[in-house]
Amino acid sequence: MLIREATAADWPAIWPFFHQIVAAGETFTYPTDLTEEQGRDWWLLSAPSRSVVAVDESGTVLGTAKMNANHLGNGSHIAGASYMVDPAHAGRGVGRALCTYSLEWARAAGFRAMQFNAVVETNVHAVQLYHSLGFEILGTLPEGFRHPQKGLVGLHIMYCPL
Amino acid sequence: MLIREATAADWPAIWPFFHQIVAAGETFTYPTDLTEEQGRDWWLLSAPSRSVVAVDESGTVLGTAKMNANHLGNGSHIAGASYMVDPAHAGRGVGRALCTYSLEWARAAGFRAMQFNAVVETNVHAVQLYHSLGFEILGTLPEGFRHPQKGLVGLHIMYCPL
Repeated sequence: MLIREATAADWPAIWPFFHQIVAAGETFTYPTDLTEEQGRDWWLLSAPSRSVVAVDESGTVLGTAKMNANHLGNGSHIAGASYMVDPAHAGRGVGRALCTYSLEWARAAGFRAMQFNAVVETNVHAVQLYHSLGFEILGTLPEGFRHPQKGLVGLHIMYCPL
Repeated sequence: MLIREATAADWPAIWPFFHQIVAAGETFTYPTDLTEEQGRDWWLLSAPSRSVVAVDESGTVLGTAKMNANHLGNGSHIAGASYMVDPAHAGRGVGRALCTYSLEWARAAGFRAMQFNAVVETNVHAVQLYHSLGFEILGTLPEGFRHPQKGLVGLHIMYCPL
């Protein structure tokens, strides 16, 4: 697996699983009817922010991440990141590789911590992955997310010092 | 004191104290060199978000607030808000009136809670005010804010059910 810069040319490979994940509405606080154009603008960031893809040896896009400052001004030493893994390629360590990559990027870029603002508590694989990489839960917004099947569930705010 | 919709015509009265507060860099995670035009775009929101001013009987702008959804998609039942009070009119209950107003707006608009993402822990008057209005601290991002005098301090995530 290789992680490399995402370009506009990767978007057609990202959008199908990006759309599937966003439309399912189970893990992201994005409008579930986000259009392809909005999605591209939200996901493919310009420097100093970054967007990457994880690809296999044949060049197939397995997943993607974006990384940026979570706060601005005097909070701009706190990074944020988001990840999407194609469900067709789940269980292969793609999420772990992307998260590890983003932590290394943030450390090298001089950020002091990574903060996730809204991790859906029923997204247990993600929560476990983040814990295993050094994240802790700072707090949980009660009933902060309306899961389409499970109803109102909490949104974790998670944090990892760098 | 009257709280009413803010219009573009109010901006010249807002900007001097808005700029003073942002440039001081003690309470907001905004770029301290935010320009007047950026500030106006950030602060004067369109429907369904709202921006208001608190004015006295002579029409002087004492403070201002903006209110919006804090999360989108399946988190869009969580509101957010920000407040600025002209330091020349501090201690007159302007912040309390604006915060109370925003909570009533959010409740009436169908939000289920109000969440603040980044309350600087050294901004003790604000923290006390929010506590007194029913907010609790969900968690604190350690060293999340670089205070120009006090160094690295925490950023509270605060929450009030509606």
